[in-house]
Amino acid sequence: MDLVHQTSSVRFFADYERSIGNYLVDADGNRLLDMYMQVSSLCLGYNHPDLVEAISDPRFITAAVSRPALGSFPRTDFADILKKSLISIAPKGLSAVQTMMCGSSSNEHALKTAFMWYQAQKRGGPPTTKYLESSMRHELPGTPNVTVLSFEGAFHGRTLAMLSTTRSKPIHKVDLPAFQWPVAKFPRYKYPLSENVEYNKKEDDDCLAMVESIIKKQKKAKRDVAALIVEPIQSEGGDHHGSAAFFQGLRDITKKHGVVFIVDEVQTGGGGTGSFWAHDTWNLQSPPDIVTFSKKYMTGGYFYADHLRIKEPYRIYNTWMGEPTKVILLEKAIEVIKRDNLLKNVRNIGEELQKGLRDLEQKYSSKMHNVRGLASFCAFDIRNASKRDEFLAKALSKGLNLGGCGDAAIRFRPALIFGKKHLEIALDILDKSMKDL
Amino acid sequence: MDLVHQTSSVRFFADYERSIGNYLVDADGNRLLDMYMQVSSLCLGYNHPDLVEAISDPRFITAAVSRPALGSFPRTDFADILKKSLISIAPKGLSAVQTMMCGSSSNEHALKTAFMWYQAQKRGGPPTTKYLESSMRHELPGTPNVTVLSFEGAFHGRTLAMLSTTRSKPIHKVDLPAFQWPVAKFPRYKYPLSENVEYNKKEDDDCLAMVESIIKKQKKAKRDVAALIVEPIQSEGGDHHGSAAFFQGLRDITKKHGVVFIVDEVQTGGGGTGSFWAHDTWNLQSPPDIVTFSKKYMTGGYFYADHLRIKEPYRIYNTWMGEPTKVILLEKAIEVIKRDNLLKNVRNIGEELQKGLRDLEQKYSSKMHNVRGLASFCAFDIRNASKRDEFLAKALSKGLNLGGCGDAAIRFRPALIFGKKHLEIALDILDKSMKDL
Repeated sequence: MDLVHQTSSVRFFADYERSIGNYLVDADGNRLLDMYMQVSSLCLGYNHPDLVEAISDPRFITAAVSRPALGSFPRTDFADILKKSLISIAPKGLSAVQTMMCGSSSNEHALKTAFMWYQAQKRGGPPTTKYLESSMRHELPGTPNVTVLSFEGAFHGRTLAMLSTTRSKPIHKVDLPAFQWPVAKFPRYKYPLSENVEYNKKEDDDCLAMVESIIKKQKKAKRDVAALIVEPIQSEGGDHHGSAAFFQGLRDITKKHGVVFIVDEVQTGGGGTGSFWAHDTWNLQSPPDIVTFSKKYMTGGYFYADHLRIKEPYRIYNTWMGEPTKVILLEKAIEVIKRDNLLKNVRNIGEELQKGLRDLEQKYSSKMHNVRGLASFCAFDIRNASKRDEFLAKALSKGLNLGGCGDAAIRFRPALIFGKKHLEIALDILDKSMKDL
Repeated sequence: MDLVHQTSSVRFFADYERSIGNYLVDADGNRLLDMYMQVSSLCLGYNHPDLVEAISDPRFITAAVSRPALGSFPRTDFADILKKSLISIAPKGLSAVQTMMCGSSSNEHALKTAFMWYQAQKRGGPPTTKYLESSMRHELPGTPNVTVLSFEGAFHGRTLAMLSTTRSKPIHKVDLPAFQWPVAKFPRYKYPLSENVEYNKKEDDDCLAMVESIIKKQKKAKRDVAALIVEPIQSEGGDHHGSAAFFQGLRDITKKHGVVFIVDEVQTGGGGTGSFWAHDTWNLQSPPDIVTFSKKYMTGGYFYADHLRIKEPYRIYNTWMGEPTKVILLEKAIEVIKRDNLLKNVRNIGEELQKGLRDLEQKYSSKMHNVRGLASFCAFDIRNASKRDEFLAKALSKGLNLGGCGDAAIRFRPALIFGKKHLEIALDILDKSMKDL
């Protein structure tokens, strides 16, 4: 394998034909309970029968072998497919969607949309000749010094621009040129939340003050913050949560300063938090300007507010502009999620998972801490990275596949079909692995 | 449709279920001979029976509904799938491949590979703590001022970094921040080539001199050119060709200065030039360092020379790292291309298409000029953009779908199954449309 493909990050090879539901079978035939689900990217587990059936949908077959350039020659039924899938679960207040293929390209095009809108506002209309010409030389005013504000610990993708907003780990960033874009602190809470209310509120306040101060400073330096991008839960960076009050504050500050508020739900979207969108729990007075997604939604893309629609052709464009087969599969997945009440299942199981983890935290208080989660989107911390990796290996050897993130966190990303019997098995393996550690 | 998706660039809606072979059926039931093939992205036309059959391949079904995170948990058979598909058509001298999902992400990761390698050479090893730490602050030495050299008229994708190398049209670039990377002139030949040998040779020489001078100047300014990226035929930019001598010169200069030589075959790869790779015609003494691809190959990705392999895990990585269903379809497509001798067909048809276009050029010498092509990858110019668009509309109304590119070019991107009878129909419509113009 190494002869033909990059393999240094491979954990194990898997037999996907024999994998089913919550169980992933490795190359040696070991059946593993999977709470990582391909880096949080499978909503219905392995080989779900309804999805298998959707493969023989004539629309799927045609879209797979006669793939359209959606920006130029869309399928006659594409609006219908979108209505039955993405539009049916659109975040409150946002009704337009643009499909893309992965998380990075979704975030890239969200940023592009924000920059184009910001410049149009500033100019008072579409780009004039002066702007068009200077952009070909990468000079002002056509190539603006606009910036995007992101957070310490953030992960927004691995293209060069998204890496400029990603601040989780140096191994992603080192040796690569970057845009000089500003960065703010993201809250780091103490757990349990109920015992650290004051400390955590101060975290929120400090971070919000820093955000507003950066926006002002950048404007003064003529390096305006056109957009702010943030994850509801910083996942790759270590499962760091922000409170509803923190995000309400971000919405207020961005609105006040005319900054496009982008919520990156690439990892949190798709039901794991007990809702289609993690930001549903924030009770915002007005919706985010853009919400990006990928992973569990199979197709990438972003929802955006009406005022952000770019009217000139070929500005938000590329050959494929997404992948209709993924949207057709998603249509079926959403049908299944609704039919089988899977979001309710996730909320119930999530509550029990969190309770189980807290019990373990009490039992092994010197070894694990900071149990946290939103429904089944859970995590806890271990002393350091090497102990964490040791724990991951122990759990794997006992039949449980988990993910790591951040410095020393274990993250849980079960499929939406994860049930009671799976939870029992998982908690038992966690207990034994922790005892061994 | 406009309520839910960006539509300003839509030319028409299409009925893909009723489209077959070289014919695309529009929403009104009109049957159009298609020589544009979804912006050059379908190698076997519409609903090819062998590809339809491949959809029921159990490997395809599993890969579609249980999509692996290829960098962490690859399919046990993935090396085998790659060997039967991409590796079987690897460019001469390159045997390692990394799959990605689209042209932009392929080029992004090719650049990242180049930057990582360049910095490792300079440093004499993997990144040390000093590099890792400073990269988190976007400071030297971890965040280097390295650059990539591209060409006027180039198109390498639409993420922000790739747009910094794209120099085809301002509408793609305006209002977006850019990396300050250098740009060189790309030859602009006079046609017919046989009557302009001296002029065209001077074009080559001037452009090569400029490339070398920029590389030296950038080094002096401590903004080293780590990579040079170039298309064999600048497609979006207007179907501008470079000679074998020009590309041999680029290979020599990049080798001399330790610059990674990246050939972007996103549009030219896939058989339209009569070969799997357009750069096969250059007779290079040593292969390019990286060759990127997407479009007709269905999966994106890049081939790279052994010395460019990045050994540290998670540096060239993302959740999906490509899309196995596309590679499984490609395996079948390559089987068909070989079985049906389609590259030979493309060379034969291409010769006749070029002859037919030259005949039309003689007949309508005041209206069309600069007929050029490599096999069926052809183009000609019309007086200006509005006349060109008028011509495209006329041909479409008579049943022929073509693409435009650059300022005033018409581009031909037929599928590999385009045959003699289709050529007769196409030339007849071209003749009538030109007469009407």
